[in-house]
Amino acid sequence: MSFLLKEGKDRIGRNAILLAMLDEEELVNIKTRLKKYDWKFCTGKVGAMELKKVLAAIETAAKRENIVNPSFYREMHALYHATIEAMYGITRGQIELGGLHRTAGLRFSVISGEPYNQSAEGKWIAVALYGTIGAPVPGHEHETIGLGINHM
Amino acid sequence: MSFLLKEGKDRIGRNAILLAMLDEEELVNIKTRLKKYDWKFCTGKVGAMELKKVLAAIETAAKRENIVNPSFYREMHALYHATIEAMYGITRGQIELGGLHRTAGLRFSVISGEPYNQSAEGKWIAVALYGTIGAPVPGHEHETIGLGINHM
Amino acid sequence: MSFLLKEGKDRIGRNAILLAMLDEEELVNIKTRLKKYDWKFCTGKVGAMELKKVLAAIETAAKRENIVNPSFYREMHALYHATIEAMYGITRGQIELGGLHRTAGLRFSVISGEPYNQSAEGKWIAVALYGTIGAPVPGHEHETIGLGINHM
Amino acid sequence: MSFLLKEGKDRIGRNAILLAMLDEEELVNIKTRLKKYDWKFCTGKVGAMELKKVLAAIETAAKRENIVNPSFYREMHALYHATIEAMYGITRGQIELGGLHRTAGLRFSVISGEPYNQSAEGKWIAVALYGTIGAPVPGHEHETIGLGINHM
Amino acid sequence: MSFLLKEGKDRIGRNAILLAMLDEEELVNIKTRLKKYDWKFCTGKVGAMELKKVLAAIETAAKRENIVNPSFYREMHALYHATIEAMYGITRGQIELGGLHRTAGLRFSVISGEPYNQSAEGKWIAVALYGTIGAPVPGHEHETIGLGINHM
Amino acid sequence: MSFLLKEGKDRIGRNAILLAMLDEEELVNIKTRLKKYDWKFCTGKVGAMELKKVLAAIETAAKRENIVNPSFYREMHALYHATIEAMYGITRGQIELGGLHRTAGLRFSVISGEPYNQSAEGKWIAVALYGTIGAPVPGHEHETIGLGINHM
Repeated sequence: MSFLLKEGKDRIGRNAILLAMLDEEELVNIKTRLKKYDWKFCTGKVGAMELKKVLAAIETAAKRENIVNPSFYREMHALYHATIEAMYGITRGQIELGGLHRTAGLRFSVISGEPYNQSAEGKWIAVALYGTIGAPVPGHEHETIGLGINHM
Repeated sequence: MSFLLKEGKDRIGRNAILLAMLDEEELVNIKTRLKKYDWKFCTGKVGAMELKKVLAAIETAAKRENIVNPSFYREMHALYHATIEAMYGITRGQIELGGLHRTAGLRFSVISGEPYNQSAEGKWIAVALYGTIGAPVPGHEHETIGLGINHM
Repeated sequence: MSFLLKEGKDRIGRNAILLAMLDEEELVNIKTRLKKYDWKFCTGKVGAMELKKVLAAIETAAKRENIVNPSFYREMHALYHATIEAMYGITRGQIELGGLHRTAGLRFSVISGEPYNQSAEGKWIAVALYGTIGAPVPGHEHETIGLGINHM
Repeated sequence: MSFLLKEGKDRIGRNAILLAMLDEEELVNIKTRLKKYDWKFCTGKVGAMELKKVLAAIETAAKRENIVNPSFYREMHALYHATIEAMYGITRGQIELGGLHRTAGLRFSVISGEPYNQSAEGKWIAVALYGTIGAPVPGHEHETIGLGINHM
Repeated sequence: MSFLLKEGKDRIGRNAILLAMLDEEELVNIKTRLKKYDWKFCTGKVGAMELKKVLAAIETAAKRENIVNPSFYREMHALYHATIEAMYGITRGQIELGGLHRTAGLRFSVISGEPYNQSAEGKWIAVALYGTIGAPVPGHEHETIGLGINHM
Repeated sequence: MSFLLKEGKDRIGRNAILLAMLDEEELVNIKTRLKKYDWKFCTGKVGAMELKKVLAAIETAAKRENIVNPSFYREMHALYHATIEAMYGITRGQIELGGLHRTAGLRFSVISGEPYNQSAEGKWIAVALYGTIGAPVPGHEHETIGLGINHM
């Protein structure tokens, strides 16, 4: 039977969220753990009024860090849908930023690896987004988060 | 000018997510910090195939811990919309669980307090959901997260 | 060239909204005007936690008042889509009531007739919904409105 | 117990809709009533193929008439979400205008004030939109309405 | 009682899909059948990152082939909603192409005619879309389909 | 470079749609072709007012025909999302049947296999739905289609 690695600290989504959300000095333990698992990961930042810019930033970072191989559509397809799913959490009802007069300042993380106890479950990918969303006016913003997970 | 308290550790949404996501022993520092801020908070668990059950569990916990006052619709209205926004992150495209043959096992947190530097911005409320979503089959699930933030 | 009858008072949607929203004594002039146009109309009330109950109440009233002929799918199809469109206004983001722990108390109206200057534009149908939506707690509700318009 | 002011004529949403929909000479009584309540209000017009233009027009009018104070994010946040909710009624399924090859000619109103019997329920805000939506071809349009209500 | 013409081969949506999907040599029988029914039809191709371009291409083809009469809003309204409904199938969750960093290469068909046994059900319109959707990278795409049907 | 097998007749989605849509005697050539490719496939029928019943029928058929292996969540996850995507085409705007007072009579097909020229793209899965949707009244229905495609 497949199950998610039980202890919370080993979960791919939780790690993706912490990677996207914590400060550098808090991340030391988490990065050590991810390397121990042989999971690949990257982080980055993107400020945007257009969701396609967020998609492009994540795709570029994931390709550069060899988390996905751009030669294979199946890997790009897995990443794309994981990112779109994370955007539902960020946008909460309307998959749109500037067209609805709002902007987002986001940190993101991508992790790929085997999150289940059985290796036959294979590699999965997690995309986490964390940051602020609001009006294009300084300070008129609140926090927002999203997580998408997909098999690769 | 209003701005979100700058240092990440003071942010209401980040604290709400960690409350919902971390293990008890990791939460000691966070709970101490929340008390120092005079922010009210609660956490809980709910397993559900119906979103109304998730809404009810959160509402019950927030009332019991005096985070919202059920005598005032304005507070219940703020909590309701924050919870619905968190559900967009959890459900990623279809605001539905059992009707689409899936179930969720969630931890939740609610925090209320003043998250901006200016006290005139008043109280806000954050609802975080973290857990797993998947088929009604053991192990056939992955992680999911959502965060909703509203002025009170 | 087709155009909507210019003066606001002759518009089908505006009349549908007023029919659903105004008190009986305010409606005298409006009902007189509708009869003058040879437009058919009905009004009704429905309290519901299920959208299918709202759909059924509107359908029943419209059939009883001969606004639609239930022998013809094309007329029922026109009414159905006009009603669904009105529900987007009522529910604002999630086409759902009780499943999201909320209830609605609605008045509705249906008008059919020729709203354009050219008679070749034929008959159209307008469905208006007006009332309150909120938690299943007395007083914890606010107003809501919706309008759907379709060719018949 | 909180309840909406009972008589229909005192309801904030109903007044917002009539403000957005009626002709100037019909509005005399309504404006007198709104002033008697100490409710603030404004009206305006906007023609647009972009929803952000509608959002900006409403925000500008509400700020100019001191219905919201742009120094406080909480007030702008309340207005923003009330406006988005009104847009669900206008767009009925796709929060989009020009991107789906359609345009809208709208009148809008914003009202803020205390709509509940208990003053502890505080100020709320109502945004109403009324007008036509259709193809970018003269006359190829029908009426549309939306209402959003939020606590301030 | 109205019913859809029973034998599958006589159904309007099935014919629309085959028109949009099959190769020219496979279409000979289908086109013969459509002419026998006195149904009007057209086909075309459109590659796009913007849904309004797809809408415009379909509208232009349907007008040119006299499937809809652009003098009457009721016919354009029927075509518009049938096309939007077909787009839900194509885009599966977000009514958007380029804004979400994806592109579509589509064949389309439009058929109008009487699809029910009773002639009182009148004319209906079917819009079918078939092709590929994916990243703006050659080969990074999969198939997609959509069908919208409306009374005229 | 990856590309979809060029000739239309070799495409996985097209074959899935034809499997779900054509009559038995028309399917002989298609089934022969699918076997030649070493693609697995199944077909079935389901009448439902609940989407979870459609999901369950498809899942049961795909497991019984060994198209997916229920021991592995990754395969069930791929099937689930492909089915949900097909439902967007069927429901066109509201992922709901009976709750909106409508019912569907569907044929479905599932195909798994390698649809790209490069074998490194691996197995993909296509779910097609075709049938009628409408009121729970005989004959008050029109056709509907949906297709979802996912990497396995």
